[in-house]
Amino acid sequence: MTDFRQQALDYHQFPTPGKISVELTTAAETSLDLALAYSPGVAEPVRAIAANPDDVYKYTGKGNTVAVITNGTAILGLGNLGGMAAKPVMEGKALLFKRFAGINSFDIEVKHKTVEEFVNTVANIADSFGGINLEDIKAPECFAIEKALIERCKIPVFHDDQHGTAIVTAAGMINALEIQGKNIKDANIICLGAGAAAIACMELLIKCGAQRERIYMLDTKGVIHTRRDDLNEYKRMFANNTDKRTLEDVIDGADVFVGVSGPNLLSAEHVKLMAPNPIIFACSNPDPEIKPSLALAVRDDLIIATGRSDYPNQVNNVLCFPFIFRGALDVRARTINDEMKIAAVHAIRELAKEPVLQEVLDASGEESLTFGKEYIIPKPMDPRLCGRVALAVAKAAVESGVAALALPENYMA
Amino acid sequence: MTDFRQQALDYHQFPTPGKISVELTTAAETSLDLALAYSPGVAEPVRAIAANPDDVYKYTGKGNTVAVITNGTAILGLGNLGGMAAKPVMEGKALLFKRFAGINSFDIEVKHKTVEEFVNTVANIADSFGGINLEDIKAPECFAIEKALIERCKIPVFHDDQHGTAIVTAAGMINALEIQGKNIKDANIICLGAGAAAIACMELLIKCGAQRERIYMLDTKGVIHTRRDDLNEYKRMFANNTDKRTLEDVIDGADVFVGVSGPNLLSAEHVKLMAPNPIIFACSNPDPEIKPSLALAVRDDLIIATGRSDYPNQVNNVLCFPFIFRGALDVRARTINDEMKIAAVHAIRELAKEPVLQEVLDASGEESLTFGKEYIIPKPMDPRLCGRVALAVAKAAVESGVAALALPENYMA
Repeated sequence: MTDFRQQALDYHQFPTPGKISVELTTAAETSLDLALAYSPGVAEPVRAIAANPDDVYKYTGKGNTVAVITNGTAILGLGNLGGMAAKPVMEGKALLFKRFAGINSFDIEVKHKTVEEFVNTVANIADSFGGINLEDIKAPECFAIEKALIERCKIPVFHDDQHGTAIVTAAGMINALEIQGKNIKDANIICLGAGAAAIACMELLIKCGAQRERIYMLDTKGVIHTRRDDLNEYKRMFANNTDKRTLEDVIDGADVFVGVSGPNLLSAEHVKLMAPNPIIFACSNPDPEIKPSLALAVRDDLIIATGRSDYPNQVNNVLCFPFIFRGALDVRARTINDEMKIAAVHAIRELAKEPVLQEVLDASGEESLTFGKEYIIPKPMDPRLCGRVALAVAKAAVESGVAALALPENYMA
Repeated sequence: MTDFRQQALDYHQFPTPGKISVELTTAAETSLDLALAYSPGVAEPVRAIAANPDDVYKYTGKGNTVAVITNGTAILGLGNLGGMAAKPVMEGKALLFKRFAGINSFDIEVKHKTVEEFVNTVANIADSFGGINLEDIKAPECFAIEKALIERCKIPVFHDDQHGTAIVTAAGMINALEIQGKNIKDANIICLGAGAAAIACMELLIKCGAQRERIYMLDTKGVIHTRRDDLNEYKRMFANNTDKRTLEDVIDGADVFVGVSGPNLLSAEHVKLMAPNPIIFACSNPDPEIKPSLALAVRDDLIIATGRSDYPNQVNNVLCFPFIFRGALDVRARTINDEMKIAAVHAIRELAKEPVLQEVLDASGEESLTFGKEYIIPKPMDPRLCGRVALAVAKAAVESGVAALALPENYMA
């Protein structure tokens, strides 16, 4: 085992198993403390909430709690290993929610046979939380699950593998297109992969101006086209009326390649075929569709982003999910709609154009970073992210009419 | 509103709504920290757990996490006010788990139509936790719910309103009987109330030696007897073949009165009718079945306990539930069986016979406390409780064959 792998196991085992704990936010030392925290004092907030249901946000942690929920069917790139194997990932997500956005978060792993059973289980416990982050649920079930839960729950339900990835991808992509002098409306886009992230990324790029007919999506069987009869309803939305069948066929002249598939599926020969000033988002993790060094060796007019922190332009969901929930919770949005997602895209991408803080350079081990081919999206350690993204999302929630509260005065100022 | 009531609301609202938060137990400052906590490092514990399911206890918080789960149908003595009104109580329970036994705990409120739906929902999420504490679920549904969940879950499921109350009641009762020179086998016991706590208390007293035919249980319609045709299966277990119909009828000559009913239902006249050296547990909360001052005014040979901290002999579940779970979790018991419950009874009652620590006197505002009529059970603030109860419970789990682990060396020493 490598040092890093052992270090990762140690990190999870010590000082106590796992990465999160529950702590008290109030005093519980004296008899009076306990009489306030529990019987008989606790009867007062109980009565208040029974009389006025909104008081649950005043007297309990509901409004600042997000459950991270999975069934373990699509853990990272590792596949369907079940809920228990997913638990370290879910606890990691909870850790990131707290670390980056101050949101209390814990994980729930669901056992179920049918989509309906998963939905019923989660809907039955949803009131306990202020929001639900779905995670590592495989396609195509994840689409029906998310849709049903959004309909049934009064709180935001957000499948991060879809929308978090899509938002950060779109933020980076819009900046990359700008740097390369391309208009999103005219861009020919290749999407290798047709799972949850792929479909959500392409749908969001379309909402940001991309043309559906200029998108070529490929699954393991090649190009998704109108004459295939093996497509689920989600892939079918991307079926092109085309004679092109392979990655070679479609990459020729393409402006953009988005990989959410597997390692080393894009070759240097493929890259050579792309249009001038191409853009590659090779997001397969931990090993990208093509190594940046390999791609840049054949194309110096390229912008390349990956999912890794050790290359420039990391497409990392942590740029989005803590803050989109922060904004949604703070104005008590009942859902996370397209307006909020697009607001997050622009808040993230605009931050990349601002001078990078010294502390971010220090944390990243960089001497300097300037908006350009090697810096199209902010770094996860940028402390301005929370304020910018949450503010944009909260504003969009209020303006689109899904927020129960007004924007707090001087919010995130 | 009284000062105390306002203070209780303030306690729940400030500094942040609620009483618990989720915090990090590992460092998450540098890029390396994040690479270990989440992608790519988190893949290592994922793979380890997929290969060896037991590793979920090594690399995640599961083994030290207890979910507090309710449907809000029997909140304190306030009734069926729903899951959201129950949330302050559930968060209070989570606070007590952490404060007294270092267990990470959070609350889940379940919406459901049928018992089956509640059971399915909880069973589907149970693997996420090391144990489940059911709370404030009304009788008789609570019995079927607990039974089904114990059968379906591989982790301890414990309805505290039943068994926590029963264990602390039995601990105090055995001591009270000893002080009064009574043998539990011969004691005539009146139980006013026939809900979850009442039935569990009587079942546990029977397991500790009480005779079922010497117990008279009363519900709102009076004595539960064999000629009634309105009894559910749980009350029916306590149906006496008797002509007695009222509290007046049965209290005459009774040794023990246990009240888990409502305020002021026991009169001074009732108390006068009891046998010499009687015992009264007036556990209705916040107002007992009879005020101690009133009962003691007519009987100076009396021992009286209540649910309140401002009278002597408080029957408080916090003497048990944090520690029974502590012991169960530490040897990874798959259930909490009778042996473990009875071990907890004796560990609690024996502690009352030891000298009281100065810090407990200070926290209780007492000058001195000695085992006797006014001190039959330990105080919640006694720091020895965790070690004593958890050790007894863990030992009992190991010896009764329900523990996956051996007793750790020097456990709780």
